[in-house]
Amino acid sequence: MSREYNDSKLKIFSLNSNEELAKDIAAAVGTKLGKCSVTSFSDGEIQINIEESIRGCDVFVVQSTSTPVNENLMELLIMVDALKRASAKTINIVMPYYGYARQDRKARAREPITAKLIANLLETAGATRVITLDLHAPQIQGFFDILIDHLRGVPIIAEYFIAKNFNPDEIVIVSPDHGGVTRTRKLAERLKAPIAIIDKRRPKPNVAEIMNIVGSVEGKTAILIDDIIDTAGTITLAANALMESGAKDVYASCTHPVLSGPAIERINNSPIKELIVTNSIALSEEKKGGKIVELSVANLLAEAIIRVYEEQSVSMLFD
Amino acid sequence: MSREYNDSKLKIFSLNSNEELAKDIAAAVGTKLGKCSVTSFSDGEIQINIEESIRGCDVFVVQSTSTPVNENLMELLIMVDALKRASAKTINIVMPYYGYARQDRKARAREPITAKLIANLLETAGATRVITLDLHAPQIQGFFDILIDHLRGVPIIAEYFIAKNFNPDEIVIVSPDHGGVTRTRKLAERLKAPIAIIDKRRPKPNVAEIMNIVGSVEGKTAILIDDIIDTAGTITLAANALMESGAKDVYASCTHPVLSGPAIERINNSPIKELIVTNSIALSEEKKGGKIVELSVANLLAEAIIRVYEEQSVSMLFD
Amino acid sequence: MSREYNDSKLKIFSLNSNEELAKDIAAAVGTKLGKCSVTSFSDGEIQINIEESIRGCDVFVVQSTSTPVNENLMELLIMVDALKRASAKTINIVMPYYGYARQDRKARAREPITAKLIANLLETAGATRVITLDLHAPQIQGFFDILIDHLRGVPIIAEYFIAKNFNPDEIVIVSPDHGGVTRTRKLAERLKAPIAIIDKRRPKPNVAEIMNIVGSVEGKTAILIDDIIDTAGTITLAANALMESGAKDVYASCTHPVLSGPAIERINNSPIKELIVTNSIALSEEKKGGKIVELSVANLLAEAIIRVYEEQSVSMLFD
Amino acid sequence: MSREYNDSKLKIFSLNSNEELAKDIAAAVGTKLGKCSVTSFSDGEIQINIEESIRGCDVFVVQSTSTPVNENLMELLIMVDALKRASAKTINIVMPYYGYARQDRKARAREPITAKLIANLLETAGATRVITLDLHAPQIQGFFDILIDHLRGVPIIAEYFIAKNFNPDEIVIVSPDHGGVTRTRKLAERLKAPIAIIDKRRPKPNVAEIMNIVGSVEGKTAILIDDIIDTAGTITLAANALMESGAKDVYASCTHPVLSGPAIERINNSPIKELIVTNSIALSEEKKGGKIVELSVANLLAEAIIRVYEEQSVSMLFD
Amino acid sequence: MSREYNDSKLKIFSLNSNEELAKDIAAAVGTKLGKCSVTSFSDGEIQINIEESIRGCDVFVVQSTSTPVNENLMELLIMVDALKRASAKTINIVMPYYGYARQDRKARAREPITAKLIANLLETAGATRVITLDLHAPQIQGFFDILIDHLRGVPIIAEYFIAKNFNPDEIVIVSPDHGGVTRTRKLAERLKAPIAIIDKRRPKPNVAEIMNIVGSVEGKTAILIDDIIDTAGTITLAANALMESGAKDVYASCTHPVLSGPAIERINNSPIKELIVTNSIALSEEKKGGKIVELSVANLLAEAIIRVYEEQSVSMLFD
Amino acid sequence: MSREYNDSKLKIFSLNSNEELAKDIAAAVGTKLGKCSVTSFSDGEIQINIEESIRGCDVFVVQSTSTPVNENLMELLIMVDALKRASAKTINIVMPYYGYARQDRKARAREPITAKLIANLLETAGATRVITLDLHAPQIQGFFDILIDHLRGVPIIAEYFIAKNFNPDEIVIVSPDHGGVTRTRKLAERLKAPIAIIDKRRPKPNVAEIMNIVGSVEGKTAILIDDIIDTAGTITLAANALMESGAKDVYASCTHPVLSGPAIERINNSPIKELIVTNSIALSEEKKGGKIVELSVANLLAEAIIRVYEEQSVSMLFD
Repeated sequence: MSREYNDSKLKIFSLNSNEELAKDIAAAVGTKLGKCSVTSFSDGEIQINIEESIRGCDVFVVQSTSTPVNENLMELLIMVDALKRASAKTINIVMPYYGYARQDRKARAREPITAKLIANLLETAGATRVITLDLHAPQIQGFFDILIDHLRGVPIIAEYFIAKNFNPDEIVIVSPDHGGVTRTRKLAERLKAPIAIIDKRRPKPNVAEIMNIVGSVEGKTAILIDDIIDTAGTITLAANALMESGAKDVYASCTHPVLSGPAIERINNSPIKELIVTNSIALSEEKKGGKIVELSVANLLAEAIIRVYEEQSVSMLFD
Repeated sequence: MSREYNDSKLKIFSLNSNEELAKDIAAAVGTKLGKCSVTSFSDGEIQINIEESIRGCDVFVVQSTSTPVNENLMELLIMVDALKRASAKTINIVMPYYGYARQDRKARAREPITAKLIANLLETAGATRVITLDLHAPQIQGFFDILIDHLRGVPIIAEYFIAKNFNPDEIVIVSPDHGGVTRTRKLAERLKAPIAIIDKRRPKPNVAEIMNIVGSVEGKTAILIDDIIDTAGTITLAANALMESGAKDVYASCTHPVLSGPAIERINNSPIKELIVTNSIALSEEKKGGKIVELSVANLLAEAIIRVYEEQSVSMLFD
Repeated sequence: MSREYNDSKLKIFSLNSNEELAKDIAAAVGTKLGKCSVTSFSDGEIQINIEESIRGCDVFVVQSTSTPVNENLMELLIMVDALKRASAKTINIVMPYYGYARQDRKARAREPITAKLIANLLETAGATRVITLDLHAPQIQGFFDILIDHLRGVPIIAEYFIAKNFNPDEIVIVSPDHGGVTRTRKLAERLKAPIAIIDKRRPKPNVAEIMNIVGSVEGKTAILIDDIIDTAGTITLAANALMESGAKDVYASCTHPVLSGPAIERINNSPIKELIVTNSIALSEEKKGGKIVELSVANLLAEAIIRVYEEQSVSMLFD
Repeated sequence: MSREYNDSKLKIFSLNSNEELAKDIAAAVGTKLGKCSVTSFSDGEIQINIEESIRGCDVFVVQSTSTPVNENLMELLIMVDALKRASAKTINIVMPYYGYARQDRKARAREPITAKLIANLLETAGATRVITLDLHAPQIQGFFDILIDHLRGVPIIAEYFIAKNFNPDEIVIVSPDHGGVTRTRKLAERLKAPIAIIDKRRPKPNVAEIMNIVGSVEGKTAILIDDIIDTAGTITLAANALMESGAKDVYASCTHPVLSGPAIERINNSPIKELIVTNSIALSEEKKGGKIVELSVANLLAEAIIRVYEEQSVSMLFD
Repeated sequence: MSREYNDSKLKIFSLNSNEELAKDIAAAVGTKLGKCSVTSFSDGEIQINIEESIRGCDVFVVQSTSTPVNENLMELLIMVDALKRASAKTINIVMPYYGYARQDRKARAREPITAKLIANLLETAGATRVITLDLHAPQIQGFFDILIDHLRGVPIIAEYFIAKNFNPDEIVIVSPDHGGVTRTRKLAERLKAPIAIIDKRRPKPNVAEIMNIVGSVEGKTAILIDDIIDTAGTITLAANALMESGAKDVYASCTHPVLSGPAIERINNSPIKELIVTNSIALSEEKKGGKIVELSVANLLAEAIIRVYEEQSVSMLFD
Repeated sequence: MSREYNDSKLKIFSLNSNEELAKDIAAAVGTKLGKCSVTSFSDGEIQINIEESIRGCDVFVVQSTSTPVNENLMELLIMVDALKRASAKTINIVMPYYGYARQDRKARAREPITAKLIANLLETAGATRVITLDLHAPQIQGFFDILIDHLRGVPIIAEYFIAKNFNPDEIVIVSPDHGGVTRTRKLAERLKAPIAIIDKRRPKPNVAEIMNIVGSVEGKTAILIDDIIDTAGTITLAANALMESGAKDVYASCTHPVLSGPAIERINNSPIKELIVTNSIALSEEKKGGKIVELSVANLLAEAIIRVYEEQSVSMLFD
């Protein structure tokens, strides 16, 4: 990634969600961010000015739809419209975190499938490709008829733990819920460790839900893995249950640190020793530090951008 | 409008922008608002629950895309997606104020046409009809391939001034800028009055812009008319210029009171005697009162809903 | 479901995948199957003749895309085209088994997402709604922009086991792989039982994969649950592992009995006591009997058809 | 514009509306018009033969939808279909005059929005870009989802008057109606002159409409500016009113000289001294000469074509 | 067809191509034509006013795209746009003659397929169904994704000849070219007669084309049948060839009498005894009479309209 | 065709219908077939693995939708989906035989138009161009909005007969039915021969259909020509009729040898001397040989691929 792309038809723009990451990506690619300004009028309407010609260019726009999700999404849609009308050759959305991904099916009557709506809105605005990371469900790829590259954050998290040189026999990788067992198995494979599952259930009617643990954790260092940690309720309850079941230590990890509402407080008060996350979502200064360890996905995304631009295979980045 | 629609296939829902107006509309139609909840998770994602069956119904959703415009728009899009997936027969958006309407053309290089983007997003989500009021440019109707009914607020504003029994020879209707002369002429016709135009221009390079007045206002009561008053800069400068040019009194009026930023303060400090607006945008309590007179569009919108539902002509509501 | 629909605008047609089920559905609805013939020319091209007028009707076509999957799919697409061109009011596909559902994401480089392709093909042909059962991933609902009703077969399977009056303390519900734990938890809730997971993994490089069991099964009756049983390799290895780990008995269950290739032989040779399935896929005569217990989804689908036709809420059928 | 494009992938074709202009454009670009024949069968059906390969080329088709508007439009749609099926890389419509632009909103019940219909038809046929000039309303840009470049004729008209060296204090720029004040202000800015507006209104019911003038014109040279002059009724009445109000001289100008029906006679009989127009619409020989001064837009359009072809910014041509 | 449809939701409108036929259709249906005006401005732009509410109605628009084909087509497209925007429930085009039907394939390099373009334009404008008659190629049905009912004029022509009581042994039905033999066989079946084909070919290079006759015509009354007679060159050369080959008499017939250019003169000067046509294309007064016998398709089209409106099968009208 | 394309962006893949032909095409182009595997799971679902990067490539997929037509079609659709999602630049389907082409119009009530459905499915999957040969009706070109190149097999067949050096006066080219006379005339022109038509008809009700021959065949070598020979019923009855009418010899020819069911037996038992076909459909070993002469279309298709890839005119291959 030492090539220079300054004079080329490759343009990378950052919107407001993730400016630090965008700068790192551009640096890793060997170029600078394109010039554009995104401002809000006093009535809240967003105005975008793209301040250099992008006619005929392959444009990459870096934007996670993290909090404030609706603002960030509208910024992105308006930017795509502007790029389309300014004759961009291709419009590639680099979306490290795909907001609304958990509204991915109709679980109850008259629910929207907002994750599909978002996909449709992006296509309507004029996007031609989406590069994203650890979708809540990999099936969301099929919500798109445009191109989508689905990269993985688990290998980056795995590397971090591998560097700790745990004895495989002394760790266990734990899924905090029923839906995340496949992800748990993938991390376990890289760490050559067994798995366990937190099986939250209500033993009898009118009895409180209990955090049952399926699998053996006693005396072990437990590593919780999830894709998203939002209010941190599930993960901290899981950590407590693990400690009560005799775990020696608890680490937690996720790709997307939403960390909304009481999350930081809960984590601080929990037995979690470290929370490993990526910078797919920018952490505010007050969230940074403490137990949180932030790993960068800039090189991964930069590599994907270069490969897309140069029409090379992206597939080795899928695992 | 005394009919009862409680048991029918007509359903009216309110989202968060304009609950008061929505209730008034439902009352005028002779029904109650449908039950739904719109909440935000702590990470800012919107969740919508429609709490009654709307299968096979003609559904009307009342929502202005006023401040917070991006939140209100996403609420609306998600609601439309939910209604579509819940088998609504038709999904009619009652949007008294159409946000982003001023981004309706590409005035400079690489600008978006956000008003068109919004139209495309609404169609993509699944809307089948839009009922709206005094679009910033009537051509926005053509941004839609779905049905759109474009109602007028000017007659309601005209009625208010007619009730004041001004002598037509003692008033003048004034356009605050070059683009609003046609609207000004329409109000002038109803009040049988002449018009004037504020012609903001720079007489020589490096000289300050002046508020020139084309037309005669001396000794007259001037009535300024605009479609949208946002920060109130233009309208209050216009009011000052009118007073300096010898106007006796200045009234101001508009359909859509955006009134963002310094607007209220500017109006309070201006020579404007009254500012006549409609409730197309809900005014917060602190904005209400003072010089502001609020007229209701509930009956107008209710009549439109009934006529659409009963497949009668809506055209008499166009003037 | 005692109503008579013979003279109505409701028409139910069967294609070739599931004629018995279609007849049962029609009987439960209180009507007869519509007349049509589906034949193949000697070169393999399918010819469809719809032998009664369906102009202005709500048409329901019963067809699983089970083996021969490509034949069944093309029958369905051609039928939908014929219905569209014959002026059907709505075209509702009743697809108890959705073939190709396992190709629902791009797991490796240059893979198709065939489950999405199928959704697009059905929409292109002219379908207006799909009624289906236990999709391999519930996110497949979001592959459709047309209406989709996603019914559940688990309650029917649960009822069967409830009737056996097992002691909840003596059973365990087992997921045969990492992806099915949520489904397993749902059955476990209805049977008030704990869960276990088969964790197939390779302990060290160049060592055979082992069927590790996470959770406790000793001395218990284990009930394996999956959505699809195809070649029965996973399920029979799981059954063996359960017995080796001290399970008393093993039952297996699934919604969709694909049962291809060596499936029947494997099941017969396995410790599985009974295999509980639904008739979402028609079993050939030689597959029927033996250990297989077939439960009918005809009433469930009939109820869905009536509710769709009468524009009533379908949501109580979702759980 | 001295480059030679003869051997390139850039092809310019002329249809029947504007052959002279098309030749001038091609010359300014440095190439020759592509070979094609457009003929009508004796039953009126149009037949198009493109007589050279355009596979993989960027094709520009010059055609105004001026009189005979429906013939010219169908020629264009058929040409676009032929180019699409002949594997053109891009199909760029150079449409100096956009017919039906005045039907751009639904002003009364049950009206079409023909300007939007035309946009949809062009997209359906396969156009990928439209280059046009002074649309009746700039919002028509938003009728398109394909690319549109909106050039301005006012600077060319302004240059003509600047060359006359009028004293800015002795001229006034006049809008012939309420809708054209923004355009009038733009010309006034370039000529550093004040503006006036013709305010056609009916003072009392059952009294004839009068041509009131808002603003001061006495003793001045008045320059009327409009986008389209069709039957010349409004502009000649305006000229009369200006003379009656004491104007010294009256010039008229517009971008698009439709000049249908009695237009030429009215202009000849009016006090208009000169009518300045562009060649966006080809004038027949009998219309040319007399008071009409024709300015060429060939260089402007040629520059736009080159910039589009070479993927340079077109934006400096927007003002 | 004695029913009264005056108060119903069925509306029939006529545009300018075929007013007489439209009136006859409306009378046969038992209603009156809807009120609308179609006028041209002096610059040639079409203006349409629909003068009664059609909201929620099933609207049928009668218009052949005969000469002036482009005017008639644009009238139709604009009317459809107006109806769509006025909330018609369905928009059914009754197009007895489908212009441009002969441009139905790409026979040479870089040709358009204008018949497909027309189909796309009608769909884009908003048509929901087309009812037409004797398409030049029946495959044109497949150009549409909207509904199309393809009626036959041959039975009406056959009836006329049956009434003449020819002896089947003394007549021969003749195809004037290679492409019309199937149509010829269909008429022959109804008249129980043999067929012959005019085989226009060039026996050697640089030798004039000859009108060879395949099949026996000597001593017989020959009945030429075609779908369209345009300039009448082929049909009159065929008639001459038949007489030279010993035919006793020659009749000619077609569904669509385009009769452009020299057609009437050629027919008058030919040995053709009678030319049997339908009123799918309105004949001007000067064309009527002489050898031309005009049969009406009003009852056929009225029956189709009633059946579509009442959702009955239209299929018996296909033969 | 001596160029080497091994390192280029041109990729040719073969699916299962026509591997021999695909290899010959690749050889003629000067490259090798791309690597991909197409397998069926034991339940019949197709799995495709593309084993080399095709990002940014112009991909050509060779597949006839011959028997097993539905398998071959689904293979093709899944392949196109995979190529689209793998970022192919263009996806060009080389389909020597277009299955279902005979279902190209709605001949009876409630029939599908399957040939159009197939076109829509291919477009939906993501194909950007189709290269095909001798469509059953040339109008099928208009079923596509994507690019289609329609090549001709007749010249290849003509060449074969020209090499036999028949005396033009001693041969006659015969159409086996009413619909194929135009094709017959085209072959006749190349062989400078007259034509005849088999006119199958029923002379009186309740009397057997007879094979009447229109035109003279006595003493001549008759060459039957059709586009498709399927069960060979029509062609062998035609051959018998020709012999009974005094033909000296009978040859038969077609582009597409479907040859299903009793075809081979019928041909063997018929007076047909040779059956000339192309390899647009792969013949099984047991069908090859005997009376069948197979001509290759590999060079023709290779030339088309090269010209498409190099953006040269393809039109000389249309005749």
